[in-house]
Amino acid sequence: MNPSPLPALLRVLAGETLERPPVWFMRQAGRYLPEYRAVRATAPDFIAFCHDSEKAAEVTLQPLRRFPFDAAIVFADILLIPGALGQKVWFEAGEGPRLGELPSLDSMAGEIDASTARLSAIGDTLSLVRARLDPEKTLIGFAGAPWTVGSYMIEGGSSDRSRARTFAYEQPEAMDRLMDILAESTARYLAMQAEAGAQVLKIFESWAEGLPEDLFHRLVIKPHVKIITRLRELGVTAPVIGFPRGAAAYAETYLDQVDVDCIALDTAAPAALGQSLQKRKAIQGALDPLLLRAGGPGLERRVDELLRQWGGGPYIFNLGHGILPDTPIAHVEAVLRQVTGK
Amino acid sequence: MNPSPLPALLRVLAGETLERPPVWFMRQAGRYLPEYRAVRATAPDFIAFCHDSEKAAEVTLQPLRRFPFDAAIVFADILLIPGALGQKVWFEAGEGPRLGELPSLDSMAGEIDASTARLSAIGDTLSLVRARLDPEKTLIGFAGAPWTVGSYMIEGGSSDRSRARTFAYEQPEAMDRLMDILAESTARYLAMQAEAGAQVLKIFESWAEGLPEDLFHRLVIKPHVKIITRLRELGVTAPVIGFPRGAAAYAETYLDQVDVDCIALDTAAPAALGQSLQKRKAIQGALDPLLLRAGGPGLERRVDELLRQWGGGPYIFNLGHGILPDTPIAHVEAVLRQVTGK
Repeated sequence: MNPSPLPALLRVLAGETLERPPVWFMRQAGRYLPEYRAVRATAPDFIAFCHDSEKAAEVTLQPLRRFPFDAAIVFADILLIPGALGQKVWFEAGEGPRLGELPSLDSMAGEIDASTARLSAIGDTLSLVRARLDPEKTLIGFAGAPWTVGSYMIEGGSSDRSRARTFAYEQPEAMDRLMDILAESTARYLAMQAEAGAQVLKIFESWAEGLPEDLFHRLVIKPHVKIITRLRELGVTAPVIGFPRGAAAYAETYLDQVDVDCIALDTAAPAALGQSLQKRKAIQGALDPLLLRAGGPGLERRVDELLRQWGGGPYIFNLGHGILPDTPIAHVEAVLRQVTGK
Repeated sequence: MNPSPLPALLRVLAGETLERPPVWFMRQAGRYLPEYRAVRATAPDFIAFCHDSEKAAEVTLQPLRRFPFDAAIVFADILLIPGALGQKVWFEAGEGPRLGELPSLDSMAGEIDASTARLSAIGDTLSLVRARLDPEKTLIGFAGAPWTVGSYMIEGGSSDRSRARTFAYEQPEAMDRLMDILAESTARYLAMQAEAGAQVLKIFESWAEGLPEDLFHRLVIKPHVKIITRLRELGVTAPVIGFPRGAAAYAETYLDQVDVDCIALDTAAPAALGQSLQKRKAIQGALDPLLLRAGGPGLERRVDELLRQWGGGPYIFNLGHGILPDTPIAHVEAVLRQVTGK
């Protein structure tokens, strides 16, 4: 047989089962790397850093120079969209994100066109990375999903999302309109990323956990369907990875309704669930970042287990959540050796 | 047919489907009730309050005087066991629990016998409540599960449990021994509660979420199996409700391996999952406490939906998590009218 001309990650997203799964890590460009910290030290403001295409391109490429990852993911943040829609967003040193007052829905609806233009620097980052990246490596773009991003917007920062859920109960029309605004701006932002060189698009629903079924349909499934429908209307053909984190019990329903090419699983995904999902679409996941940091024989055993349990279907090896800042680089190297043989 | 002599809750736990489900609420004795706040104001120390059988019995009975609940649940706390095993536990006003240094495993293992005796006040509470409670009403005893309680013990308070999970990875033997010690002391504590009048026992695994499958087996399933095995060895025949919160994707596996009479579901349980579980055992749950607090037509609609989706099998109506302190009493009344017709 002739080798496929596509890079490994795209082959898996097209439904192929490879002898060894492609691999990348969530937050692979980040604080566990000294070279990242060095660049970050030159850019005190985090949001400005995300909009600095040269620096963002540099940190996007850093992990690919060190490790045999199969993909680069553009360095950016899920909270760039609220900023582009007119809400103030900033990061306090050592704390999570902070957001100013939620703009009116009318005001945000009027900013959707402009918001994509305000995020053009992320397109520039992608173009720079694509030009410098090995053609065998895949470039991933991403955005936060409407519920996750909207909950930050409503709460004003990190939280247990109880105010956002209460908002969904008490002001259902306003919430549904906020989801629509975010779905539309997210679709356009992702389309811009695809045009700039992103070959895969990932939708991060980082906070899908705990949602009752009616809210899961309203706040997760419906906006994801809208984003993908709009992407296809806009002519974008790139495969999409959906990541409804903390919602393994809804994973089959998610695949029934959302036309993603891959579902990313978090640390708590049962082996059998992944195997069932693989009969329909590619899966990605789900090594525990706490185990990656802890290391030792338990890490090697677990990586082996993941490769065995999911290696028989279309599978992208990844973490179940972002890599932790104090993860030893030697642990990353060991896992990548185990997965790739390199 | 003759009517069954058993109270409604016990009939459902024996597998019966009733025309209207029995109902109780997690934390139904609590701060949303002015009469609770009045008693609580006379007992500044929370742990001492739990050990004051007269006061604890009074607040246990309060919600039954106001509302047509089918069961009382003994007023106590899941962190009484660490205290009884020799770890300091206290509550700072307006904050969560705080715990002192973790005693050595040998020291705690030597305190198991004594720990049950140190919790005898909770038995006294149960005897007082049983003597005063309508015989039609069921009395529930409970304990926290080893992983949930152990994670507080390791972390020293509320947390995202990442230190406890890291402990499980880095010191597997110590973690497994801690689980064994907690399973044994929990089984004896629950046996004592049954002897004192508890007719149903509930195991609260409040923090099962996010656990990788190997840890879910090691830290949740194995200790729960051990508790129930020991309960039966100790001659306890009371039905058991297991509540692995945040782990809907493992619910079927949990029922495969843990011999509970009912699985309690949290807010994020899909309708179809509950229906599938009901073919095997009774289920309990899972109204969102945030929706109960919010009220309005959405609340009535959702209660209706829960009754329809799960009312066709053995079902106990409850919340998916504890009632919130600022929940309007009128909302509780409205839901209970809807469920019980009273």
